[in-house]
Amino acid sequence: MKKVVIAYSGGLDTSYCAKYLSKEENFEVHAVSVNTGGFSEEEINKIGENARKIGAASYKNINAVSSFYQKVVKYLIFGNVLKNDTYPLSVSAERIIQAIEIVNYAKEIGAEHIAHGSTGAGNDQVRFDMIFQTLAPGINIITPIRDKKLTRQEEIEYLQANGVDMNWEKAKYSVNKGLWGTSVGGAETLTSGKPLPETAYPSQLQQKELKQVILTFTKGELSAVNGKENAPEKNIEILEDMASKYAIGRDIHVGDTIIGIKGRVGFEAAAALITIKAHHLLEKHTLSKWQLQHKDYIANWYGTHLHEGQYLDAVMRDFESFLQSSQEQVSGNVFVTLHPYRFVLDGIESKNDLMNSGFGKYGEENNAWTADDAKGFIKILSNAGKISQYVKNNQ
Amino acid sequence: MKKVVIAYSGGLDTSYCAKYLSKEENFEVHAVSVNTGGFSEEEINKIGENARKIGAASYKNINAVSSFYQKVVKYLIFGNVLKNDTYPLSVSAERIIQAIEIVNYAKEIGAEHIAHGSTGAGNDQVRFDMIFQTLAPGINIITPIRDKKLTRQEEIEYLQANGVDMNWEKAKYSVNKGLWGTSVGGAETLTSGKPLPETAYPSQLQQKELKQVILTFTKGELSAVNGKENAPEKNIEILEDMASKYAIGRDIHVGDTIIGIKGRVGFEAAAALITIKAHHLLEKHTLSKWQLQHKDYIANWYGTHLHEGQYLDAVMRDFESFLQSSQEQVSGNVFVTLHPYRFVLDGIESKNDLMNSGFGKYGEENNAWTADDAKGFIKILSNAGKISQYVKNNQ
Amino acid sequence: MKKVVIAYSGGLDTSYCAKYLSKEENFEVHAVSVNTGGFSEEEINKIGENARKIGAASYKNINAVSSFYQKVVKYLIFGNVLKNDTYPLSVSAERIIQAIEIVNYAKEIGAEHIAHGSTGAGNDQVRFDMIFQTLAPGINIITPIRDKKLTRQEEIEYLQANGVDMNWEKAKYSVNKGLWGTSVGGAETLTSGKPLPETAYPSQLQQKELKQVILTFTKGELSAVNGKENAPEKNIEILEDMASKYAIGRDIHVGDTIIGIKGRVGFEAAAALITIKAHHLLEKHTLSKWQLQHKDYIANWYGTHLHEGQYLDAVMRDFESFLQSSQEQVSGNVFVTLHPYRFVLDGIESKNDLMNSGFGKYGEENNAWTADDAKGFIKILSNAGKISQYVKNNQ
Amino acid sequence: MKKVVIAYSGGLDTSYCAKYLSKEENFEVHAVSVNTGGFSEEEINKIGENARKIGAASYKNINAVSSFYQKVVKYLIFGNVLKNDTYPLSVSAERIIQAIEIVNYAKEIGAEHIAHGSTGAGNDQVRFDMIFQTLAPGINIITPIRDKKLTRQEEIEYLQANGVDMNWEKAKYSVNKGLWGTSVGGAETLTSGKPLPETAYPSQLQQKELKQVILTFTKGELSAVNGKENAPEKNIEILEDMASKYAIGRDIHVGDTIIGIKGRVGFEAAAALITIKAHHLLEKHTLSKWQLQHKDYIANWYGTHLHEGQYLDAVMRDFESFLQSSQEQVSGNVFVTLHPYRFVLDGIESKNDLMNSGFGKYGEENNAWTADDAKGFIKILSNAGKISQYVKNNQ
Repeated sequence: MKKVVIAYSGGLDTSYCAKYLSKEENFEVHAVSVNTGGFSEEEINKIGENARKIGAASYKNINAVSSFYQKVVKYLIFGNVLKNDTYPLSVSAERIIQAIEIVNYAKEIGAEHIAHGSTGAGNDQVRFDMIFQTLAPGINIITPIRDKKLTRQEEIEYLQANGVDMNWEKAKYSVNKGLWGTSVGGAETLTSGKPLPETAYPSQLQQKELKQVILTFTKGELSAVNGKENAPEKNIEILEDMASKYAIGRDIHVGDTIIGIKGRVGFEAAAALITIKAHHLLEKHTLSKWQLQHKDYIANWYGTHLHEGQYLDAVMRDFESFLQSSQEQVSGNVFVTLHPYRFVLDGIESKNDLMNSGFGKYGEENNAWTADDAKGFIKILSNAGKISQYVKNNQ
Repeated sequence: MKKVVIAYSGGLDTSYCAKYLSKEENFEVHAVSVNTGGFSEEEINKIGENARKIGAASYKNINAVSSFYQKVVKYLIFGNVLKNDTYPLSVSAERIIQAIEIVNYAKEIGAEHIAHGSTGAGNDQVRFDMIFQTLAPGINIITPIRDKKLTRQEEIEYLQANGVDMNWEKAKYSVNKGLWGTSVGGAETLTSGKPLPETAYPSQLQQKELKQVILTFTKGELSAVNGKENAPEKNIEILEDMASKYAIGRDIHVGDTIIGIKGRVGFEAAAALITIKAHHLLEKHTLSKWQLQHKDYIANWYGTHLHEGQYLDAVMRDFESFLQSSQEQVSGNVFVTLHPYRFVLDGIESKNDLMNSGFGKYGEENNAWTADDAKGFIKILSNAGKISQYVKNNQ
Repeated sequence: MKKVVIAYSGGLDTSYCAKYLSKEENFEVHAVSVNTGGFSEEEINKIGENARKIGAASYKNINAVSSFYQKVVKYLIFGNVLKNDTYPLSVSAERIIQAIEIVNYAKEIGAEHIAHGSTGAGNDQVRFDMIFQTLAPGINIITPIRDKKLTRQEEIEYLQANGVDMNWEKAKYSVNKGLWGTSVGGAETLTSGKPLPETAYPSQLQQKELKQVILTFTKGELSAVNGKENAPEKNIEILEDMASKYAIGRDIHVGDTIIGIKGRVGFEAAAALITIKAHHLLEKHTLSKWQLQHKDYIANWYGTHLHEGQYLDAVMRDFESFLQSSQEQVSGNVFVTLHPYRFVLDGIESKNDLMNSGFGKYGEENNAWTADDAKGFIKILSNAGKISQYVKNNQ
Repeated sequence: MKKVVIAYSGGLDTSYCAKYLSKEENFEVHAVSVNTGGFSEEEINKIGENARKIGAASYKNINAVSSFYQKVVKYLIFGNVLKNDTYPLSVSAERIIQAIEIVNYAKEIGAEHIAHGSTGAGNDQVRFDMIFQTLAPGINIITPIRDKKLTRQEEIEYLQANGVDMNWEKAKYSVNKGLWGTSVGGAETLTSGKPLPETAYPSQLQQKELKQVILTFTKGELSAVNGKENAPEKNIEILEDMASKYAIGRDIHVGDTIIGIKGRVGFEAAAALITIKAHHLLEKHTLSKWQLQHKDYIANWYGTHLHEGQYLDAVMRDFESFLQSSQEQVSGNVFVTLHPYRFVLDGIESKNDLMNSGFGKYGEENNAWTADDAKGFIKILSNAGKISQYVKNNQ
C-alpha cells in the first residue's frame, strides 16, 4: 500500500485530504502536525484523535519549537525583521520549518508521497513544494484542494457524505497560531479598506494596569525576562503570555505574494513585536553606525527571501553568519512598559553601551576634542561639496 | 562696521551671541529666524522685539514652511523616512533649510560673517557650517559658544551683567519645534535608561474619544484631510493639530551623530508619523514589489545623508528623481483612527489599488491561472535549489 | 483566416515556424524582423524574400535601432551595466525591444496570435512571453519548437519534405548580432572549461597599429567620435566599426538564467565595452563619491531586472529617472587607445572635472586646509572607533 | 630619552623624519619597516643600514606578508574587490596592516610617540592616525612633513646640511610595492588626461609567448598554481612572478580620497587582477544567483570601508563572516592564458559546478521540466505586471 505523509493541521482542508486520499486513492495515510508553538497537549491529542477517526493509519506530532527558534526566529530577531516594516513573518517562517520536518519524517518512514492542503492562490504551496522538491527530489507531491479547486462547501459535503461530521462550524476567521505570532484572515482582509473587528483577534484586552518588564539579551538572544533565565524560545512564550493580555502587537500586513498578487492578512504578535523593538533599541546603543546601516540591507533581504521560500538558498547561511557575528556586543537589559494595545521602550542598560563613555555629551559637551578639531573636521568634510560648487560656478 | 547675520532663535545661546558680538566685537548684528513651522505671529513678534532690545540692528523672520516642505519634507514622505525606524528627522531636516535661507539672506544684505549658537558637541554645527562654507566659500563663520565652551550659567551671568535680564528661567527641557515634529532634550535623554516624563512632551492628552480621519494622497502628497483640500504643508499642520490632542507620535531617538558619538533625543511628531505610515500603506497597495524593495534602500540613504548634512550632494537630487518617479500611482484615501497615544490604519481605497483586480484572492481563489500553472511555476522556481542540492549530494 | 505574427529572424527555427503554421495550422503568417542593429539592407531583403518563399503572407522589417538606444542602451551606458562584471547584456536588452515592437505590430494588423521560435530551455521565452502577455493580455502565444521539443534535424527534415531547401548548412555557432554586441554560442559554451576558438568570433583581427580615439560625452551620451557629432546610436556603430577591426571586446559570460539553470555564452562587443568603460572613467572625474557608490547599486539591479525580463516593472522607470538625473555633469572627452584585442583609457578632459580644482593635490599639497584641520578631521573621524575600543577595554 | 617609533620606508620623507626627530627634537628614534610583500633580503638590509646611518637607535623589519594575507587580502579575493571596478586597493590594504604592526611594536618597546612621513593631502595620514589613535589612545603622533608643509627640496637641503647625502636622485615616479600590487605616482597622474609612460611601470614586457596557467582554489583561497600547492600568499607571489613578465595588470585608478578631493594613481597588479578575475569566474559556476547578487553589495562596501581606514569597525568582522561563509563551495581549477599585456580566462572545472548537471542545457534542452511547466512559470511570473497593466487600463 502506498504511503502518504499529510501535513495535517486538523482543519477542514487537511481533514478532507486525509479522508479523500485514504478512501478514494487508497493511500496509507500518515498524518503529521509540526508544532512551531502555540499548541497545548490537549489540542494535540484532539487533533490526533480526529486524524485517526477520519482514516489516518498514524498520527504524529513533531515538537519543532526549539528547532524553529534556532533555525529561523533567532535570525529574525538578530535582523529586527519586519516585512514591509510591519509583519514579523509569523507564518512565512513557520512553513519552512514545517516543510523540513515533514520531508524528514517522510524519508524516515519511507513514504514516497507527501500531501498538503494548500490552494493554488497562496504562498504556502510555494514554500512547501520548493522544500519538498529540493530535499526529496523523487517525492510525489499531492494537493487535492489545489488540483480540484474545491470550495469549503464541497469539502464539507464530501466529508459528511462519508460519515465525518466534526461540526465544521464555518469559522469566520482562519487563524494560524505559532511561536512568532498568530495570523488572522477573514472577510475584511479580502478588502483593502476594512479593519478586522476587535473580536477577530485571538487575545482580548484583559489587563489595563501598566506593567514594567525587563528583557535581558545576551549576544542578541532573549536570555531572561524580569531577571528569570530560560531558553530564548521559552522566554518568548513567557513574554507572549504577559503581553497578549494587553492586546499588544496587532496590525494588518499588506504584501506581495510569491505568485504576483497582493495579499492582506491580520496578525497579532505581541512577543515578536516587543522582542524585535527592544532588541533593536539595544543595538542602537551597542553597534557601530555602519553595522546598523548594513544590517538593515541584509535583514531586509533575509526576510524577503525567507518570505519567498528561499530558505535553503546558500545565501541565507551567509546572511546568518553576518547576523551572528553582528551580535557579539548586543547584551544588556531593555526596560519596557506594557500599556493597553501598545508598549513603550523606556531605555536600556548595558556594559557595552557606546553612548555614555565620557567622550562627549550629545549637543552639550565635547571632552575628547576641541572646537578647532570640530572646525577642521567640518572643513574637510565640506571639501567635496565645495569643490563641486566651485567647479559649477566656474564652468 | 562689519555686518554679521545671526541665526537667531531667541533662546539663551543666540541671545548671548547677539549681545556679545554687538558689544564686544563691534558687529552690526542682523538677527534672522527661519520659521520652518510652529511659530505663531505673536511668538515671532516677541522674538524680534527681544533681538532689538539686546542690540540687534535688524530682525528678520523668514517664513520657510513651504520651501521646507517642497525641498525636504515631501521626499521624506515619498521615502517613508524614519531614521533607525523611529525618528522622522524633524530637526535634521529643518537645519538644512534654515542654513540655506540664512546664507541667502547674508548674501542679500552683503554680510561677510554668519554666526550661530551651536556647541562643539552636536550635529547642528556640521549641518550649518557645511552649507555656509559650500554656498558662500568666502563667508566667515562665528560660533562663540563652541569657541569659548561656555556653560549656560556663564552666558546668563554675562547677559545680566550687561543689563539683559529676560527671565532665563532655566527651562528643564530644550525644545525645538517645527512642521515635521518637536524634539525634546533634557536630563533623562542624557542617560541611556530613563524615559522622558509625560510632562516633558509638548502636547498633553486632551482628547480620548476615537476619531476617524481620511487622508487623501495625490501622487504621494497629502492633498486633503477629511476631504478638505489644501497645500500639503497646510494639511500637515491641520493633522498635527488634530492628532497632537491624542498625544500621538512620541518616542525617543537613539542615533549616531556625525561626529561619532551616540546621542538620544525625545520627540513628538504626530502628523509626521501618521502621514508616513498612512502613505506607506497606500504604497503597499499601489507600488510593485520591486519598487517597495528598492525604495527602502534609497529612502534609507536619503535619510542618512540628510541627517549627516549632505543635502547639497548631487546624489540627493538623483534620489529625489527616483522618489518623485515612484509616486506616479500613489493616489487614494487612507482611513486612520486616532486613539489616545496611538493610531490605527484601517485601510485604503484607491483606483490604483493592485490588490483587488479579479486575478486571484490571496490564499483562496486563483482565477488567472490554474493549478498546473502554479506547479510549473514552482517546479522551475525550484530548479536552482534542486541543482545545488544535486551537486552537493553527488560530489 | 487566423492571422499570426511571427518574430522572424530567417534562421532555421523561425523558418520552421513559418512553414508549419501556414501549412499545418492554416494561419495567415505575417513575418516580422525587428532590427536592433547589425542588419544590412541586403540581409533584410534576403530575409524577407525567404519568408515569402516559405509561405508568409507578408514580411515586415522594423527598424528599431533608435528606439533600442533610447529605451534601453542609453540607461545601460548611464549605469555602466555589465552583468556579472562582464556582459553588456547585448541580447537580453534587444529582446525587450523586439517583443514590444512585435506586440505593437500585431495589434496594428489585428492579429490575435504571436509565434516565436524559442525553446523551453532559455531566457528568451520568458522575455517574449512576459511582454506579450502584459501588453496584450488577450493574445495567443504559439511556440512550436518549445511545445514539440524539436531537434534541429527534425526541423530540417520537415522543411525539406515540404520543399523548403535553403541550404541549412549546420552553422557550427549560433550568432546573434545587434547594436550592443554579438553573442556566440556553440559546442564549447555548453562546457564549463573550453574557450571559444578565435574563428568563432565574428570579427577577426584586421588592424594592429595603435589608434587613438576621442569619445565625447554630453550628459552621459556618446555625442561625438573623434570630434564628429552624430546621434549616439550612430556613434556606437562608428566606434564598433573601428574597434572590431582590433578584435576588441571578446569574453564569455557565465550567468544564471531566469529559469534557474546556469548558462555560458560568448560575445564580442567592442563598442559596448569601450563606451561603458570610457563613460565610467568620465564619471569618476565628474560625479560625487556618493553618486558613484549608489549608482552601482541601482545599475546592478537595473541590469538584473532587464536581464530577467522585468523591463515593464514600474521600478525600471524610477531607476531611469535616477540614472538620467545622475548624468547632469557627465560631459567631456575621453581619450582611448585601441590595441589588438584590448584598449587603454588614457585619460579625460572635462570642464566639470572635480580633480584639478586647486583645492589640493592628492598626496602632495593641501591648499584649502591646514595640517591642523586634517588632524581635527581625523580625530573626530576616529571618535566612534575610539569609543568602541574604550568600551571593550573597560568592560 | 623620549622614544619614538618611525614608520620607516627608507625614502626621502621618512629619512627626513628620522634625522629631524633625533637631532632637533632629541628623540631616541626606532625605525620600523613593515614588509607586506615585495622587499628582498638585500633591500631590507640596505634600508636598515641607512636608518642607522641617519641616526636611528634601532631598526626593525617586520615580516607581515602572511598576516597581510590572512587579515585583508583573503577577503579582498573572496569579495572580488576592485575599487571603482578597477583598483585592487593595493596600497589602501597595506597601510592598515602596517599601522597595526607599528602600534603593536611601539607598545612592545614602550614608546609613547609614533612618527610617520605623511603629508596633509593624502589618505595615508587618515589610515595611520585612525588606527594609532584607536589602538593606542594615549600615543602621541608626530608628522613633521604634514606639520611643516615641507617640499622635497627643503627636505633634501636639510639632510645634506646635516651630512646625510644618500643620492636622493629625484625619482621621477613614487612607487609603492607590496603583495597586492605596486602603485605608481608621477607628473602624469597629477593630470586628468595623460597616461603613464610604458617605462613608469615597474615590470616591462619580457615574455611574448602565450602561457597557460592553472589556478586551483580551495574554499576561495588560491591553494595551487599549476598543480603545485603552497600557502596562498606564496602562490600570489609565484603568479606575480610569472604574469608580471607579460606586463599584465596595469591601469590607472581615479577615486575619491577620504579628505574629499579626487586622486589619480597608476598601478600594476598582475597577480591581484588575475586572481580576482579567476576567482570570480569560479564563483559564477559555484554560487547561487542570490549569493552573487548580495556578495556584490557587501564586497563593494568592504572595499570602500577598507579604503577609508575603517578596518577596525565591527562591521568589517561581520562582512568577513559573510564572505568566509560564501566560499564553502568555491573550489576548483581555473584555466588562464597569459598574453602580452592581458590575460584570458578559458574556463573552469569544479566538482561543485552548478552548470552541467543534466537538468537542462541553456537555450537547448529542458530535461527537468516541460514546455507546460515553463508556460506556467512565465504566466505566474507575469501576474504582477499584468495586474499593474490592467489597473492602469481600467482607471
